[in-house]
Amino acid sequence: MKNFDMSIPTRIIFGKGEEKRAGQLIREYGFQKVLLHYGGGSVVKSGLLGQVKASLEEAGIAYVELGGVQANPILGMVRKGIKLCLTEQVDMILAIGGGSVLDSSKAIGDGAGNPDVDVWDYFTGKAKPVNHIPVGAILTLAASGSEMSQSAVITNEEEGLKRGFNSPTHQPLFSICNPELTFTVNKFQTGCGTVDIMMHTLERYFGWSKDSGITDRIAEGLLKAVIEAGRIADQNPEDYEARAALMWAGSLSHNGLTGLGREFMMQVHQLEHELSGMYPRIAHGAGLSALWASWARYVCPAWPERFAQYAVRVWNVEMNFEAPVETALAGIRATEAFFQSLGMPVSLEELEVEPERFEEMAEKCTNFGKRTLPGICELDKKEMIEIYQMAYPRR
Amino acid sequence: MKNFDMSIPTRIIFGKGEEKRAGQLIREYGFQKVLLHYGGGSVVKSGLLGQVKASLEEAGIAYVELGGVQANPILGMVRKGIKLCLTEQVDMILAIGGGSVLDSSKAIGDGAGNPDVDVWDYFTGKAKPVNHIPVGAILTLAASGSEMSQSAVITNEEEGLKRGFNSPTHQPLFSICNPELTFTVNKFQTGCGTVDIMMHTLERYFGWSKDSGITDRIAEGLLKAVIEAGRIADQNPEDYEARAALMWAGSLSHNGLTGLGREFMMQVHQLEHELSGMYPRIAHGAGLSALWASWARYVCPAWPERFAQYAVRVWNVEMNFEAPVETALAGIRATEAFFQSLGMPVSLEELEVEPERFEEMAEKCTNFGKRTLPGICELDKKEMIEIYQMAYPRR
Repeated sequence: MKNFDMSIPTRIIFGKGEEKRAGQLIREYGFQKVLLHYGGGSVVKSGLLGQVKASLEEAGIAYVELGGVQANPILGMVRKGIKLCLTEQVDMILAIGGGSVLDSSKAIGDGAGNPDVDVWDYFTGKAKPVNHIPVGAILTLAASGSEMSQSAVITNEEEGLKRGFNSPTHQPLFSICNPELTFTVNKFQTGCGTVDIMMHTLERYFGWSKDSGITDRIAEGLLKAVIEAGRIADQNPEDYEARAALMWAGSLSHNGLTGLGREFMMQVHQLEHELSGMYPRIAHGAGLSALWASWARYVCPAWPERFAQYAVRVWNVEMNFEAPVETALAGIRATEAFFQSLGMPVSLEELEVEPERFEEMAEKCTNFGKRTLPGICELDKKEMIEIYQMAYPRR
Repeated sequence: MKNFDMSIPTRIIFGKGEEKRAGQLIREYGFQKVLLHYGGGSVVKSGLLGQVKASLEEAGIAYVELGGVQANPILGMVRKGIKLCLTEQVDMILAIGGGSVLDSSKAIGDGAGNPDVDVWDYFTGKAKPVNHIPVGAILTLAASGSEMSQSAVITNEEEGLKRGFNSPTHQPLFSICNPELTFTVNKFQTGCGTVDIMMHTLERYFGWSKDSGITDRIAEGLLKAVIEAGRIADQNPEDYEARAALMWAGSLSHNGLTGLGREFMMQVHQLEHELSGMYPRIAHGAGLSALWASWARYVCPAWPERFAQYAVRVWNVEMNFEAPVETALAGIRATEAFFQSLGMPVSLEELEVEPERFEEMAEKCTNFGKRTLPGICELDKKEMIEIYQMAYPRR
């Protein structure tokens, strides 16, 4: 177990009907004026936005609105939000939506908290936010874990760059998580969310540290819960317990808990970022689903015992003591079959990616061959191309 | 899954050598004067106290000292600490020790933060602390989970009352957790700690709510990790990974995580509190160990499926599909055998308790028959006596 230093102060208000408390809650915190930040149609159509406004009005909280956040939140919107916060003297941002809205809100909070710094400087590593305007959230999608994480990813649409950065200022003050608000998430998006949640834990689990037995057990327990709930939510989108498990697992999978004491680098996320960066029509979860098993088969020979442990403990595969690598591969196959059962792609061919662009993707992953990604196998450009190629054929 | 509202802001600084950062850390927080609060000999003898003082001096932090906290921390000491904090204008309390020192520190923090209120009023439910002086900790024992919990238990030695109360003011600002500091904890105390940690999770797991699959999985994973680590630490007290797992599991088992979305009442803790209240020589963990299996056998018929799940998932008992109750009982026996393997008592006879005092214990549990304790079985005085009696014979 490696040393760690962690604090997860975000208050989680979880369960049925909790979004109705938004106004009262914000009043209890003592805020005066809120930026309501959200995406497109569903929050409006479902009536949620109207309910939240009514709740704020009842509590005597003033607000301004900024809707229209896209699936990959862009810098232009962030800049608009910062300006609005400053001119309207907003003292809190309420994100209503999923990871994109949350990430956009976090970036606005950083920018408005430090008006003399260009917010993009945080994403390029040139500066660190000292102050921030706090973010609260009403979550409508179980996937990114942004509602309890330090992470935020923003696309600079002018420069064509997608960048993430982690900061304690990104931990929301509170997140209201009502699983019922995810009943209307469609089959495909539910599948994407399930994969994304699993992947946040798997990427940590398949880091290169040994000796983190307790973190392993928590990760394995969480993965089992997600697999069970993902299956049920796929078949019955209004199953409260399944939606609740996915939602809470989403928060726990990316708040740090499932990687404590471990060293890891999110290799599959990196491979996928460049993929959906070049093909913005590809959903993040679908890209991860298409890549993971090939990545796993590629790195498995370097640590088959780890993959065997995963197979036995998460998928109840019988251990093959004479040939542990067979057990390891069975675990990878089980994962792949599960993703397929959710209607998720398990090859790049299904996503209609052009194989002739693999080199370009790998170049971006490695900053034009200048760097390698640490992991169970340290990956260079050539190896990444191999993984993309392995992931191509339809299965 | 029941609704929940939680926040666990305590910063955990975990791992080898981290206690050396105490002074620097406290300076970073901006505190000026610290109360060093600790127990008896071991912190002094091991040299830890001296190191911490040196670290504070190096960082230019002033401090006053109050040692001598006992195993069941008493109100007299708390009052002394409050007075010291006020006269010395202390702005932070640094607890060096285990749960008793932490609980004493928390109570001092409440009292010194609100000088106009009698601190005992918090423990009798007459008042709630509004302010507090923050507590930081250097943990030397993995057991109580107080380093990350809202709980504090204090004994009013004049009135012969042991009372606990939970408050957000009790969540430490930070806890430094170095597993190496627990290498010298002896076999018996290590066993007591292992039982106590398991019990914090088991009492939540065997609450009466259904439908909390994800919390179940986390609890089961944690229990497996504790069982594995408890065995190793018992045999090899200087095994870092085992000590690390126990320490982190101790924090996680009582910070709320393993009971989220579940309703529970710590029945075995209640039965044990009255036991060790009447026999102060009995260690809390040993009392729990002596009582749990009898409690479990008593309530098991009301929900054998739950005990069967525990047996299968935590103890790898083969499911007896024709007779699930057999599986359930095998899980209870496995738990009992594990406690015995750690040298822990599994009967009250081993603890030399007098059976003629069972009625008095049950009376105290039920406030002289006036209340029952909710649970899988709601227990009244008569039933508690039965459980104490079941727990008596040596096994």
